[in-house]
Amino acid sequence: MKSSLATWESLCAASGALRFIDVNLRSVGQVMFQDNPLSGVLFLAAIAWGSFAAGVPQVLFAGLIAVVAATLTAQWLRVDRASLHAGLYGFNGVLVGLALATFLAPGPLLWAYVVLGAAVSVVAMEATASVAKAWSMPALTFPFVLVTWLLLLATYGFAGLAGTALPAAGVVVPFTSMAATRLDAGAFVQATLLSISQVFLKGSVIAALFFLAGLAVNSLAAAIAAVAGAIVAVTTAHALGAESDLVTGGLLGFSPVLTAVALGTVFHRPGLRVAAYAALGTIFTVVAQAAFNVALTPIAIPALTGPFVLVTWMFLLPRLALDKATADPSGS
Amino acid sequence: MKSSLATWESLCAASGALRFIDVNLRSVGQVMFQDNPLSGVLFLAAIAWGSFAAGVPQVLFAGLIAVVAATLTAQWLRVDRASLHAGLYGFNGVLVGLALATFLAPGPLLWAYVVLGAAVSVVAMEATASVAKAWSMPALTFPFVLVTWLLLLATYGFAGLAGTALPAAGVVVPFTSMAATRLDAGAFVQATLLSISQVFLKGSVIAALFFLAGLAVNSLAAAIAAVAGAIVAVTTAHALGAESDLVTGGLLGFSPVLTAVALGTVFHRPGLRVAAYAALGTIFTVVAQAAFNVALTPIAIPALTGPFVLVTWMFLLPRLALDKATADPSGS
Amino acid sequence: MKSSLATWESLCAASGALRFIDVNLRSVGQVMFQDNPLSGVLFLAAIAWGSFAAGVPQVLFAGLIAVVAATLTAQWLRVDRASLHAGLYGFNGVLVGLALATFLAPGPLLWAYVVLGAAVSVVAMEATASVAKAWSMPALTFPFVLVTWLLLLATYGFAGLAGTALPAAGVVVPFTSMAATRLDAGAFVQATLLSISQVFLKGSVIAALFFLAGLAVNSLAAAIAAVAGAIVAVTTAHALGAESDLVTGGLLGFSPVLTAVALGTVFHRPGLRVAAYAALGTIFTVVAQAAFNVALTPIAIPALTGPFVLVTWMFLLPRLALDKATADPSGS
Repeated sequence: MKSSLATWESLCAASGALRFIDVNLRSVGQVMFQDNPLSGVLFLAAIAWGSFAAGVPQVLFAGLIAVVAATLTAQWLRVDRASLHAGLYGFNGVLVGLALATFLAPGPLLWAYVVLGAAVSVVAMEATASVAKAWSMPALTFPFVLVTWLLLLATYGFAGLAGTALPAAGVVVPFTSMAATRLDAGAFVQATLLSISQVFLKGSVIAALFFLAGLAVNSLAAAIAAVAGAIVAVTTAHALGAESDLVTGGLLGFSPVLTAVALGTVFHRPGLRVAAYAALGTIFTVVAQAAFNVALTPIAIPALTGPFVLVTWMFLLPRLALDKATADPSGS
Repeated sequence: MKSSLATWESLCAASGALRFIDVNLRSVGQVMFQDNPLSGVLFLAAIAWGSFAAGVPQVLFAGLIAVVAATLTAQWLRVDRASLHAGLYGFNGVLVGLALATFLAPGPLLWAYVVLGAAVSVVAMEATASVAKAWSMPALTFPFVLVTWLLLLATYGFAGLAGTALPAAGVVVPFTSMAATRLDAGAFVQATLLSISQVFLKGSVIAALFFLAGLAVNSLAAAIAAVAGAIVAVTTAHALGAESDLVTGGLLGFSPVLTAVALGTVFHRPGLRVAAYAALGTIFTVVAQAAFNVALTPIAIPALTGPFVLVTWMFLLPRLALDKATADPSGS
Repeated sequence: MKSSLATWESLCAASGALRFIDVNLRSVGQVMFQDNPLSGVLFLAAIAWGSFAAGVPQVLFAGLIAVVAATLTAQWLRVDRASLHAGLYGFNGVLVGLALATFLAPGPLLWAYVVLGAAVSVVAMEATASVAKAWSMPALTFPFVLVTWLLLLATYGFAGLAGTALPAAGVVVPFTSMAATRLDAGAFVQATLLSISQVFLKGSVIAALFFLAGLAVNSLAAAIAAVAGAIVAVTTAHALGAESDLVTGGLLGFSPVLTAVALGTVFHRPGLRVAAYAALGTIFTVVAQAAFNVALTPIAIPALTGPFVLVTWMFLLPRLALDKATADPSGS
């Protein structure tokens, strides 16, 4: 595999068109921290499967349009070349496109909105990186969260954009389970896998396997951390008495999965102390996800990966001597 | 005009009383980034016209009391002399005074509230500048927004202050236009001009012309950017299907106007790439304004210029090679 | 007293167990900025009295468990030894424990929640300190506020944790007093003392006296500032027409008390200009407390000491020449 990647890299160096494709594939891979075009291909396959299986092909197309729009905007703004080639200016755009097409009804204005959001996500990335750099922090998916929250909130004021799949606005009501629900083995496995696929807003077991493959081709540790993080998240959420549908749908697990991958493999060298620290962060991300869901109830928007960003920043900011840092934390 | 300003400046240098008036006039001018006492005079004329025409003279008086209270507080706190003389410690106070008297019922506690808010706006300015300086960012109107939000929110807990003109609290409901409303030429011109006058919380065409004059005497580019920004904002808001009354009242346009002036003329040298970048920021400020309106619905306070601050910071933080910076970004 | 403290210190230097107790007592003392084990003992006595008198002994136990959990976590994370010994890694944990047991129903998951919250408060402290350090700002109780808000919000999504004493969710409604309520001498004294005891979430006059004693043994100025701040807060809240029960219950005064102690004695050398500046901050903290109460109404969580943190940061960030700083501002 390494030699095919080397061949691909030399082809990209020779061809502007292939380089452009390469940058966009790496951008898709960077949604889960993987700077590898093959990860991007497998992630795209998962998105395609998930979109077509759910009867929403426009989600795939929005993701593709958005990543291209983001890359073109980054080129126009003459951003740092190395970061651009590593896909760091595109992954927020991918997510903006997927989210907008997931929560909003199709229509001509949706596509204008996708392009606008993708373009602004590049500015937001540069702004976030500029602030975060002061503490050697990565931008994570904060630009995606910020830009998408604003775009989704605004749809309530625009007749031209209908938020057909947005959560309903309401007052905060405590959740009380009808009875002690059991989480049997099948439900547990589904909950674990969907926690992984929901990172890309997809609720599909097959998509989850593609996502895991995309992680594994670049980093086996990342794939293991994703599964472990999902298991920790599902167990925690169930133990605390979360709504069964949220747990089995992976909707309390996708932020914790990202936290587990980030804290456990990307920004620290894996090890026992790191694993314990990452587990604490992963458990607290479940709490943060539930908290964001509640806090956003009155304004009727989804939490997206906001809880992951908050908790991962909180756990990365202390310069603890857990290990020696392996990855460049100024990256994605 | 330049020679009269030079004469005025030499008079101010000789008289403490004239210097005090000069500082307060420049503070009014700095609401739209103009360090010029004549801009201040014309802006004040606009505020006076708008206040008396709408039957709310107390708004003018609150603005005057607030700017004086802010200047006195700044002198007591011994802030930087050059920034004080440039009006940078007073423009947030002006806006606090105008906003409080616009949204709250008159009464003895209102005036105490205006003085308190103006005094605290100086502390908030110094605090914001201290943080923003780390990225060479201007404070913009963040101190005004923060202090006024807190003061307005608190009135719901105080029987002594009645928020008679505050928005009603409610749950978020998607806006659906009854039918395709048309924006004819008259409505378009009104929407454009009121987008400018609403920067000072005024809905008056004549006030808007005074504001434009106040911009033009100091910077023709700023006046052009204000009009262009307003046109972009009105067009965007209408195209996305915003409520007609909000559009024609200028209520979705005042934040974008400020973004256009800031990004297009104050912090960048005007040019083609800068204009395109400022237009992107202006369009996104319309989205942010609608988003803030929605997000603040449950807590029943107005967005003020919060969307302008957020988007302008987001677009200024990337140190892009769009041009060479002309203005000192550590200013207003 | 000084010699007994010196004896105690030498005993701690010799015994790991005593040092551990010392660190935890200082952590309790640091809730109100006092790096003194005797302050911790008196504060604990106050918490014990308040908890048993109100029939909620679990609050005391939660505070004890939390401070120990926080200290152990800090040791595991190998934080800075001097700051650990000064109690700077435990005071947020104490407050997390007290708050969780105050607002949530007892039960096995509550204790897991207390330990989780206390452990994460240490990470949050290190993260906050890392950011705040850039402006030589103290972390204050921000870690407590952030972690507790998330934990409390999340309970609305977890059937295993019941927020029996959380505020009810609702829409924002302006408060109108039925008639002009008078605040007689007895009510005024009660309001003042409870404003002090509510710093530790206790509504008890006797507890307040213990808290004042705990301040006085380490800093007479701090005890005076606490009383003066409480008087200013009660007077301001009543003058603005706040709800009588909130005023006499000390619920609008505990954040201002902390602001008064912090601005008046901890981070500035006491003096006339400092007192005036601290008074302005204290008055504005009353506004901020009322504002937070309103803003949090739709999501049904308490403001905690969030208003104190916001206003004190705002008033500390300007590097004003009010005095020469006495305390190390990088502390609690």
